[in-house]
Amino acid sequence: MSGLVAVHVGAGSHSSSLKGEYKTLMKKACTQAMTLLRGGGNAVDAVCAATQVLEDSPRTNAGIGSSLTADGRVECDACVMDGRTLRHGAVGAVPGVRNPVLLARQILEAQSQPLPGGLVPPSFLAGSGAQIWAASHNVETCEPAELIAERSQRIHEESIRNIQRLEEGGTKRRRYALPEEEEEMQGGLLDTVGAVCVDSAGYVASAVSSGGLLLKHSGRVGQAAVYGCGCWAENNCDGSGVSIGVSTTGCGEHLIRTMFARLCARAAISPALGTSIIDAVTTHFLESDFLEGVHPRMAGALILRHDPQGAVSDLYWLHTTRTMGVCYMTTNDRKPQAQFSEMVEEKIGVSVNLQCKSFRSGIPVTSPLEGLQPGTSQGEASGLAGEEQEKSDTSDEEEPG
Amino acid sequence: MSGLVAVHVGAGSHSSSLKGEYKTLMKKACTQAMTLLRGGGNAVDAVCAATQVLEDSPRTNAGIGSSLTADGRVECDACVMDGRTLRHGAVGAVPGVRNPVLLARQILEAQSQPLPGGLVPPSFLAGSGAQIWAASHNVETCEPAELIAERSQRIHEESIRNIQRLEEGGTKRRRYALPEEEEEMQGGLLDTVGAVCVDSAGYVASAVSSGGLLLKHSGRVGQAAVYGCGCWAENNCDGSGVSIGVSTTGCGEHLIRTMFARLCARAAISPALGTSIIDAVTTHFLESDFLEGVHPRMAGALILRHDPQGAVSDLYWLHTTRTMGVCYMTTNDRKPQAQFSEMVEEKIGVSVNLQCKSFRSGIPVTSPLEGLQPGTSQGEASGLAGEEQEKSDTSDEEEPG
Repeated sequence: MSGLVAVHVGAGSHSSSLKGEYKTLMKKACTQAMTLLRGGGNAVDAVCAATQVLEDSPRTNAGIGSSLTADGRVECDACVMDGRTLRHGAVGAVPGVRNPVLLARQILEAQSQPLPGGLVPPSFLAGSGAQIWAASHNVETCEPAELIAERSQRIHEESIRNIQRLEEGGTKRRRYALPEEEEEMQGGLLDTVGAVCVDSAGYVASAVSSGGLLLKHSGRVGQAAVYGCGCWAENNCDGSGVSIGVSTTGCGEHLIRTMFARLCARAAISPALGTSIIDAVTTHFLESDFLEGVHPRMAGALILRHDPQGAVSDLYWLHTTRTMGVCYMTTNDRKPQAQFSEMVEEKIGVSVNLQCKSFRSGIPVTSPLEGLQPGTSQGEASGLAGEEQEKSDTSDEEEPG
Repeated sequence: MSGLVAVHVGAGSHSSSLKGEYKTLMKKACTQAMTLLRGGGNAVDAVCAATQVLEDSPRTNAGIGSSLTADGRVECDACVMDGRTLRHGAVGAVPGVRNPVLLARQILEAQSQPLPGGLVPPSFLAGSGAQIWAASHNVETCEPAELIAERSQRIHEESIRNIQRLEEGGTKRRRYALPEEEEEMQGGLLDTVGAVCVDSAGYVASAVSSGGLLLKHSGRVGQAAVYGCGCWAENNCDGSGVSIGVSTTGCGEHLIRTMFARLCARAAISPALGTSIIDAVTTHFLESDFLEGVHPRMAGALILRHDPQGAVSDLYWLHTTRTMGVCYMTTNDRKPQAQFSEMVEEKIGVSVNLQCKSFRSGIPVTSPLEGLQPGTSQGEASGLAGEEQEKSDTSDEEEPG
């Protein structure tokens, strides 16, 4: 059967001037993952390789280029889940690890090795202990300062100044950031990254990686490290026969309280033209009692639903933020498809923009959403509306072989 | 209406010779919480006060007396959840904080204070960053070594020797531990602590605190810090009208993978003579695909179900381990009731021992389990079987006023 890999660069407010750069990056991530898949790699290999490419860019809020903590440091969250074994590996607030997703993966894999005396291998490591584990398990560590990108430092300094002005009773003003950074700061930098994949054996996997919220307190752990919140992967999800992979993005605290990844996975089991996903996100996120007092409510998710009956893969992505960037590629594709979807201003934080692409044996087919009108079920539910797609640009990624 | 508070000292293998000491401790915890409740304190006050008493004992695996990491240090996990606001606060792998539950509570409370510039207060802090937060938010910190109890140090050293012997191909032998410590080491030290409460306004809360697994890697985070896994509290749970508080104990990695606290909460909404709880734990823990290859499967939970219709409070506790120690007290009681329930050897790790006590307006009534025979639904489901209760001992706790 055919495989499919998809990545995202977060739901947030991506600067228009940087979208090209993000697309090129996402295509590179998909292409590298696809090279592995075609070489016999599995879904876990693919999501980790894709996420690693995204982490390695100083442009994303993951790995190098992560948002800085209030005290000016990089601390990362990441998680990988394997839909075949249903195991996960997670790291929270880890300093000095170049690719947090690879550390999460190492923790995932190490659980298959029994320890002497009945000791239980960890599934979740946080803080300096996670860095120590990395160093002793062949995961690359570095000086924490090496992960601070120039852009992150500039945004950090400017944000500190803004907070100080606000605390002194003034209004926000910015003087030092670049125009595209101002745009990002205004809309909220939520450009967490992640990936989902179904491999040629039909197994799903997912990954997520994040530098967390700008000016977060040191030690803060967001959804990307928390089981059921940052990502989900489950073959034969809940006994349904379909397999689901999810990678989430948004305000971590709110995605934790609503267990957002698992929420999306359960909703996608029976998508019913996507309305079950919109309904679940509306009821259990936008209208959830668990987020009393939270406005606007910012979330996004990339959801892969694979039904082995008929070899149908539906790729959904949704966001309540202004923008979300995704890219996907099947084993049949010569090139990955990258795009940003956009939400109109007045619906940000209160409405769901859901998009879908469907494939049968890797060939595009009509998506379950194409019969729906935008704006149904309190959310956008169109495969076309508000979507800025780029099917044939000349970008700099390598052609897959 | 009346209030009820209950505590546990974990599901595990408690030494027979120490049960009296554990009971005295649990009674002290319940009594202190009840004093607060009677003085107008709410459910969050009560679960935190009770858990603090349990943490302060060097006998429990929480706060001082926690199991040591492989490198000989104390790192604690804790979480508090408020069923009224549905907020939680959590700490993971935190060193040098005397009462992790009070830090979790401070993180919970701080979320009601908006921050300048739209910054989002954290709900989960881990590692040294959590300790820094404590120091700057009036939560008592200490030298990490002050939390190492003599008993923990002895068990640690002996366990290291055992592992070394096993790695050298030998068999386990112990020479240095006290007899009751040997018994604990053999059965697994899972004496995490926690509390649940419904207050006089009908609000529920829950707390959990743990030093984690013996010889865990530094930075390891267990279920006690993970949302939905260590504790749960939800008034009007899932819109059912009933309110549920849960505090869990067992092998953290396995409780995370099965989101054990939320699993128990959902199952307790409609307890149907307790069989829904036994069925849920059997299907989604003992037989769960998420724990493929894990044997035996060790878990426990203290579950408070409060139905405002009729003012009925059902207190359930369950364990798949050899023993579990619990204690409870209503605002009508002059003294708390402490007890250990026991599982027969051959059912450990493969069967559920479920117990229940029911109250109407604080007065004991027939529990939903009393019509059931032990051994139904693959689990023990009796309010009487295998229970070692102590209703009128002369213990050293203060009489509530």
